[in-house]
Amino acid sequence: MSIIMKGSEVAAAMKEELLRGVGVLVQRGIAPQVGIVRVGGRPDDLAYERGARKKMEAVGIRCVVTELPEDISQVEFQQAFAAVNDDPATHGILLFRPLPKQLDEEPVRSMVNPWKDIDCMSPVNVAKVFSGDESGFAPCTPEAVMEVLAHYGIALKGKRVTVIGRSMVVGKPLAMLLLKQHATVTICHTRTVDLAGTCRSAEILIAAAGKAKMIAADFVAPGAVVVDVGINVDEAGNLCGDVDFDAVAPTAGSITPVPGGVGAVTSSVLAKHVVRAAGYLNGLI
Amino acid sequence: MSIIMKGSEVAAAMKEELLRGVGVLVQRGIAPQVGIVRVGGRPDDLAYERGARKKMEAVGIRCVVTELPEDISQVEFQQAFAAVNDDPATHGILLFRPLPKQLDEEPVRSMVNPWKDIDCMSPVNVAKVFSGDESGFAPCTPEAVMEVLAHYGIALKGKRVTVIGRSMVVGKPLAMLLLKQHATVTICHTRTVDLAGTCRSAEILIAAAGKAKMIAADFVAPGAVVVDVGINVDEAGNLCGDVDFDAVAPTAGSITPVPGGVGAVTSSVLAKHVVRAAGYLNGLI
Repeated sequence: MSIIMKGSEVAAAMKEELLRGVGVLVQRGIAPQVGIVRVGGRPDDLAYERGARKKMEAVGIRCVVTELPEDISQVEFQQAFAAVNDDPATHGILLFRPLPKQLDEEPVRSMVNPWKDIDCMSPVNVAKVFSGDESGFAPCTPEAVMEVLAHYGIALKGKRVTVIGRSMVVGKPLAMLLLKQHATVTICHTRTVDLAGTCRSAEILIAAAGKAKMIAADFVAPGAVVVDVGINVDEAGNLCGDVDFDAVAPTAGSITPVPGGVGAVTSSVLAKHVVRAAGYLNGLI
Repeated sequence: MSIIMKGSEVAAAMKEELLRGVGVLVQRGIAPQVGIVRVGGRPDDLAYERGARKKMEAVGIRCVVTELPEDISQVEFQQAFAAVNDDPATHGILLFRPLPKQLDEEPVRSMVNPWKDIDCMSPVNVAKVFSGDESGFAPCTPEAVMEVLAHYGIALKGKRVTVIGRSMVVGKPLAMLLLKQHATVTICHTRTVDLAGTCRSAEILIAAAGKAKMIAADFVAPGAVVVDVGINVDEAGNLCGDVDFDAVAPTAGSITPVPGGVGAVTSSVLAKHVVRAAGYLNGLI
């Protein structure tokens, strides 16, 4: 029987660490604060915002939401973003993306203070993640994967790890975080020939393809660690991952469920980044 | 008998293209110019400078060398760099690295105009290479590898490519350029367990490990393409690559020699970047 790697357990352990981190800040008179910038009111954004706010407030991080009209102009959007960016009370900035189509994200990527850029928008942080400089903020999802692996004691050094997906929000930064831990990393994608075979040679398989239940039993070596980053809806309308959990779980040594796996850890990573940002901005790190 | 992929052939083909590119610029009254910034007179730097200058001048690119004393202060170094960076006649900047130990490279990385940054120092270009944005300037060596593969008609889409080495000057950016061409990429390094086996499963093997003749015959699948990025000195004092050429050549389908392989193409890539930079800076691209 495989081990089910639950996000809630990882998040619970991280909560202890977050409470300690916030405690250190508060003791020095620093009230950690995140500025959330949301354009319009997409249901996805609102759901994520509720989750993030709950997580932040539970550990003592203040959330200030700047809600902007969906039809805002580029100039007004940049002004509103700059106000949050320049506010000395704000330690971390979270901008919901994708933006409405009249808005260009590029100017705020260049503008954001890299030390407040908790979700890796700035090229400065992108470059740091690529180069393995741990002072940078990686995107939350790949870092959540690393938290899950660390929490469950999965050693990475010298291990054959296959990542399916090459996006800038998961696959590529995740490959860099894994390399930093001395894994031998293979990056697969839609053009990979013999995807099943390539996956089967992995000791650790991480699926971030965005395709419901595409990872079948024959993709997984007996005893392999399987981490599922996908969040999809199946034919019955239920949430599911990229991994066919019921088919794969008997083969895998350890496996994350969806929901309740990696996705349950991302807002904890965000909170961790706010605490770290407050440390940087106040010269504590 | 394997095909020997010669850098000189690739460089000759690139020269035609460079002459056309320079011709287009000159027709519009633009005289392409590269600014080389050299601190001290290390023999390696001087050798590279001679080669780069010869290549540039042969296609009509002007080289202006700023030679700085080896014991220069950080402030004076930055001033001298800024003068080249701000000079409107300079389209590309090449700074020899590593710098003497009293100098910090970081400030000039942030300062360099990304559109003149032909050797990928700026985080803006590092981030572009990572994200697959082809408007960025990749480091010259990984791009030279791509030129060699393209020139010899090596298809990459869906191919299993193994890169040995994870540096920011070769391994990592090369992995990103290969991914952009839809290869399935595995990144190996010193901590990889069973390096020979991992290499043997590759259709294309690229060695950038910096260890003389470490790639033996049993690392290479019959018919595989082998690209050698290493420049080492063997026990007899001769230049050699990371690949044991004599042992591997009979097995490989195609192979680059050292010297005369990838290294013979890097200065052509540099010249190509100067032409592209002059195009960007004059609004032609």
